[in-house]
Amino acid sequence: MTQHAGGDFVRRINVGDLLTRSAARAPGSDAVIDGERRYSYALLEAWSNQLAHGLLARGYKVGDALALMSGNSAEFLATYFACAKIGVVCVPINLLWRHGELAYVLQHAGVRGAVVTARMLEQFLTGLTPGQALRDVFVIDEGEDAQADLPQPLARISFAQLSAGQVSDVPSVAVPDRASLSYLYTSGTTSAPKGVVGSHLAIYLESLGTAIDTELSRRDRVLALMPMFHTAQLNAICTPAVAVGACIVIMQGFEAQSLLDLVVRERLTVLFALPMMYRALVEAQQARARDVGSLRLAVYAMAPMPDHELRAAIDTFGCGFSLMFGQTEMSPVATFFRPEHQLSHPGAVGTPGINVQVGIIDEAGRLLPQGEAGEIVYRSPQALSGYLHDQDATDTVFRHGWFHSGDAGYFDADGVLWFKDRFKDVIKSGGENIASIEVEKALYASDPDIAEVVVVGLPHERWTEAVTAIVLLRPGKRLDEAALMQQLRERLSPFKCPKSFIVVDAMPKTATGKIQKAVLRRAYADHYASESRR
Amino acid sequence: MTQHAGGDFVRRINVGDLLTRSAARAPGSDAVIDGERRYSYALLEAWSNQLAHGLLARGYKVGDALALMSGNSAEFLATYFACAKIGVVCVPINLLWRHGELAYVLQHAGVRGAVVTARMLEQFLTGLTPGQALRDVFVIDEGEDAQADLPQPLARISFAQLSAGQVSDVPSVAVPDRASLSYLYTSGTTSAPKGVVGSHLAIYLESLGTAIDTELSRRDRVLALMPMFHTAQLNAICTPAVAVGACIVIMQGFEAQSLLDLVVRERLTVLFALPMMYRALVEAQQARARDVGSLRLAVYAMAPMPDHELRAAIDTFGCGFSLMFGQTEMSPVATFFRPEHQLSHPGAVGTPGINVQVGIIDEAGRLLPQGEAGEIVYRSPQALSGYLHDQDATDTVFRHGWFHSGDAGYFDADGVLWFKDRFKDVIKSGGENIASIEVEKALYASDPDIAEVVVVGLPHERWTEAVTAIVLLRPGKRLDEAALMQQLRERLSPFKCPKSFIVVDAMPKTATGKIQKAVLRRAYADHYASESRR
Repeated sequence: MTQHAGGDFVRRINVGDLLTRSAARAPGSDAVIDGERRYSYALLEAWSNQLAHGLLARGYKVGDALALMSGNSAEFLATYFACAKIGVVCVPINLLWRHGELAYVLQHAGVRGAVVTARMLEQFLTGLTPGQALRDVFVIDEGEDAQADLPQPLARISFAQLSAGQVSDVPSVAVPDRASLSYLYTSGTTSAPKGVVGSHLAIYLESLGTAIDTELSRRDRVLALMPMFHTAQLNAICTPAVAVGACIVIMQGFEAQSLLDLVVRERLTVLFALPMMYRALVEAQQARARDVGSLRLAVYAMAPMPDHELRAAIDTFGCGFSLMFGQTEMSPVATFFRPEHQLSHPGAVGTPGINVQVGIIDEAGRLLPQGEAGEIVYRSPQALSGYLHDQDATDTVFRHGWFHSGDAGYFDADGVLWFKDRFKDVIKSGGENIASIEVEKALYASDPDIAEVVVVGLPHERWTEAVTAIVLLRPGKRLDEAALMQQLRERLSPFKCPKSFIVVDAMPKTATGKIQKAVLRRAYADHYASESRR
Repeated sequence: MTQHAGGDFVRRINVGDLLTRSAARAPGSDAVIDGERRYSYALLEAWSNQLAHGLLARGYKVGDALALMSGNSAEFLATYFACAKIGVVCVPINLLWRHGELAYVLQHAGVRGAVVTARMLEQFLTGLTPGQALRDVFVIDEGEDAQADLPQPLARISFAQLSAGQVSDVPSVAVPDRASLSYLYTSGTTSAPKGVVGSHLAIYLESLGTAIDTELSRRDRVLALMPMFHTAQLNAICTPAVAVGACIVIMQGFEAQSLLDLVVRERLTVLFALPMMYRALVEAQQARARDVGSLRLAVYAMAPMPDHELRAAIDTFGCGFSLMFGQTEMSPVATFFRPEHQLSHPGAVGTPGINVQVGIIDEAGRLLPQGEAGEIVYRSPQALSGYLHDQDATDTVFRHGWFHSGDAGYFDADGVLWFKDRFKDVIKSGGENIASIEVEKALYASDPDIAEVVVVGLPHERWTEAVTAIVLLRPGKRLDEAALMQQLRERLSPFKCPKSFIVVDAMPKTATGKIQKAVLRRAYADHYASESRR
């Protein structure tokens, strides 16, 4: 084992050390509960060290990339921390990706090895393309009946074999503070996936900051339901939990009754789920009440919950609710909508996280005063190191000495942040700027038959962009455009009302349930072209 | 104002940002209460920014050193954060230092300016020596009747003048993560003071880590009674409080009744005091009970509280008690003796802090297994950058890839750390290693007339070091050596019993109440010289 003398090694910052130290403080505490399998901190630490030594033995070095394709599992966490301990860059694979995106990411990240669950192996192999750096495929749950060898030059190795016989002490590898911990590819609301480079320092600080902001302690038992390949579950919930020595309880796939049973059985204290899931949980709990008194905090992400739903959820569960708002580039949490603001400021996205300074700027990069809307920008050690192999995008996003979120918003007089829209979703129509979110809210309020709606600006000869509503109706319903427009005109200025409605059968969505506006904009780019030719 | 483009400035780590962000999250919250003066976070932030701009206007740059000589005050905190914001290194002055130490520190740190309270100015000026870099003296509470000018080349400027007319927005200065935040001179238990260089990154992480370990939140109201010039009050209590947006309540000088009144008046939630102070508080509360129900945590430092005193304090105050153990070089907290261990492991020093890995090593630098005693060593981003102008001491303290604490100890089977002694206080006598603390405990237990005792090894021709007890008796008592020795022999192996007793009238102590063993060792170095000539 290498000996590293000197202060730099003593003062190192490594996300893997968060696990090592929680194991030292309370070795017997529950770290991960994955169905019938229960791992103490001592066990998770030892396993993770063995995996790290296994990778070292196969020649993995600081900066090598390892893909990780698994549902939520103890193996996912053990691998993530194993990579961290030796400076190998973890590249979580989005399970919704098919061959095109998968091949792009494996190639772009220069992945050398991959950890893949057996039942996802076939899907994973669709991402193979000639000339990739990929050599090793470590298969989780590799059965006795494992299929034949993979195509050359790939070696098929069982995941169990990777750690077998390895020592369980902390590997002694010098990993710089700003070394890359992960490449997280942002899923396709824009055209090509971007590789967000997250450093040890960024994720380490995010873990401590989020633990403070959510008042997480070693007594907490947190749910891991949302996909771990996504930064929110991984870095806003799991790494803070490991940092403080809390317990992570894994659930695969959402089902409201089962989740409530899990809350009771494992005495969960913190949930993390989407607003639509809380809606289902409220109904399930109202249908059959359980003792969910262990819950203290329910976290949701991406967007505010409608006021009446939030009130119903608070009434039903009696715990605090908190919105986490941010993006992959911020590792990810930028603001918290804290329990005490939820009812007094419905619709806001909260106040800045402990590591985050938030500004509102105009297009020239000037800070705007309270109350004025502009682009939301951040300063924070949690910000990404950059986009992988894309210096232009990196320079652009850091212009004016801020990280540009791409979100539009403003601060109110109480210092609470309000999100207006994705900046690029602001529609520029006839010289006016229109926030699509405002039109969407009016649509929901005007017609109960609308299940989902997005409003986009589509190219138009006269309006530059024409406000256009893309609508998914509830089953069996049809759209009465005239009646809807009459309703809308009472709620919106005329220039904000849609120029047309497009009814669809399904909405394209990302793995985390966000509607992919960019996909819709591309699909209907020519919608008004025919009209202008008429 | 300089514009700093690019990711480095966005991702910066600066202790001053902790204040900026707490002010943004909750501008109206109490930040500091200093007697009749109350400062909101918005006010403290604005003041601190104005001071920073005042220093910039006078040409202060990243790396310049500013001495700070004040009792606990709002000015102290405003100055500390002002320095942080612009990368000026803060050099807190120990108020017990007299001209020799003061002159040494001002010279050694290359101090360019000093912030000094008016009533301490005379004492401060005793530290002037020719050739110092010192130019500006900013005087707090400068009255109308200010004395004449200071000797050339010193400029005397009122502290109020420094910030007057300056803008209150955040200064835009690029300060590297590992830039020095402070030089903290360790007070004289060893011969020459050493300048411990603390970086922004180290103190930033310590602030977050300690906030998590003490479960500090914005609802807390913490006492600032111990001197702010000492790392424990400054970095283990005040900077974590600022990080989470808690309120700091200043008290100058300890008096038990007044402190209890302050707890009631300001609804204090967290205390930080010495064990002897808690003893006095228990007596005061038992004499006249107040409602101290706001208290949730009482922190003490340096050494475990005797079991019976701890139990009395817990009974009396009904809150958690927690020992912080560490040293200036660790910024400072290394381990916490958490409330849940206090009664089950009396006498231990706790489990590691969230940023700290603790090892026990032998003299060859080999890690020792659980249960074996050796030197306590740390790995942590909280560790000092180094000793100022002393590369040899820096290299020595970081040998073997660990920070060497100079403390001897071991881990028990529960993973709880036990302190045996300062490593250099282990007495090597007749081929045996003797922990002075063990002999001291036996002395206290054997003779109730002993008020204070320290046991040191003094040079001896036959024993190499002779175990020697230096004793302060309670008023009016005298030492019965024969009776005491008889008692001791029942408690200690013969080779651990003192070879002689030295009765003194007073013990030399540091500002934080530690007995200065080095001073005693020097004073009595020749104690056995005469004997050996007999």
